[in-house]
Amino acid sequence: MNAHISSAYDRDLEGITTLIMQMGGLVEEAILRAANSLANRDVEMAEAVRKADEAIDALEEQINEEAARTIALRAPVSKDLRTILSVLRLSASLERIGDYAKNIAKRTSVLVEMNPVPGADTALRRMAREVEQMLKDTLDAYVRGDAELAEVVRQRDQEVDQMYNALFREFLTFMMEDPRNITACMHLHFMAKNIERMGDLTTNMAEQVIYLVTGEMPEEARPKGDKTAFVVETG
Amino acid sequence: MNAHISSAYDRDLEGITTLIMQMGGLVEEAILRAANSLANRDVEMAEAVRKADEAIDALEEQINEEAARTIALRAPVSKDLRTILSVLRLSASLERIGDYAKNIAKRTSVLVEMNPVPGADTALRRMAREVEQMLKDTLDAYVRGDAELAEVVRQRDQEVDQMYNALFREFLTFMMEDPRNITACMHLHFMAKNIERMGDLTTNMAEQVIYLVTGEMPEEARPKGDKTAFVVETG
Repeated sequence: MNAHISSAYDRDLEGITTLIMQMGGLVEEAILRAANSLANRDVEMAEAVRKADEAIDALEEQINEEAARTIALRAPVSKDLRTILSVLRLSASLERIGDYAKNIAKRTSVLVEMNPVPGADTALRRMAREVEQMLKDTLDAYVRGDAELAEVVRQRDQEVDQMYNALFREFLTFMMEDPRNITACMHLHFMAKNIERMGDLTTNMAEQVIYLVTGEMPEEARPKGDKTAFVVETG
Repeated sequence: MNAHISSAYDRDLEGITTLIMQMGGLVEEAILRAANSLANRDVEMAEAVRKADEAIDALEEQINEEAARTIALRAPVSKDLRTILSVLRLSASLERIGDYAKNIAKRTSVLVEMNPVPGADTALRRMAREVEQMLKDTLDAYVRGDAELAEVVRQRDQEVDQMYNALFREFLTFMMEDPRNITACMHLHFMAKNIERMGDLTTNMAEQVIYLVTGEMPEEARPKGDKTAFVVETG
């Protein structure tokens, strides 16, 4: 039953890893460019981010096909099978992070028409950069099989969550101070939430990497950071 | 290489299908109960929804393990392999829909402390019921191998999107009319967005069912319904 020929399987896996890294690079770029397009009010760059998402989606499709082909041809078992299935989860997460970047870019095209909310663009860019760094480290951890680095990423997600919580409160204040800020703040708030979700997905990826390297999912529950469900102040 | 013994594989797949249906039933219940807990301001029910999510997550884990075991043991190829991989996507979508229901329930516990926003609870419940029906039909379509029913679900997602767009505008208006509505509306808006995302995920599931039955993903792009990225009115 076990038709797994080590070298052929390893070659396939290397090919898939290369595709994952390529996809990861495009997603990192999408995050940074989406945040920059907002900060610089650059509608053309926002449009480019939206277009670039097609390449990301195509890579996911290709990775899925390669993985299915590898499973069919090499019939991997136990650890090798787990690895392939984990890789599918990594690419699915990357695809979703790419979608969030695209959503941010979409809203940029709208926000440029409104009065800027002081400090918001910069704060969002800072958040986005943090998530991009986390993603970069996660991809490095994956390639190097470095579970410790992945664990560091996992802990860093709290910082992104804290940034998000602070922004949520700030937007509420702005909206209450002046109703003309409401529409812009709603969009900005969505963007912040999108970045926070990117951070969550990156953290899930880091956990997959830990699983890939150690064979076990990290046990200790990571602290959940979005506390806004419990914000009850009414100003 | 092809060690696939038809009857054993079919038995495994049947077992996995049963788990998917079980998981789907729990997720349907979570959607309805989350919406009802908001409409009835029932904090205990909201708490129960949050607790019940653990059973949903456990089922996803079990489905993943069963699928991996089936791939390892039966070494399915072509269509059979595609089926198993599709099933993994179905369970991943169900898990995410369950998470959204949990998020809605979390916010319910907070919203009960605030003044109700007229009509909001009922509108959200209507949206949630629509999504629950879509999910029910999707699961039926999956079990019966009914691509036509899945296509009907796919088209219905537009209605959910329209409900969402209408609510988005309504919440904006309420916030502008009276800043004391802002915090509640932010939470309600998140809930509406969560339900809209559930609709998207259900639609993805319907597309997976079409793929499972026909071997092809539906080609005609479905109309995208969340137009709020383009809302520019400032009141």
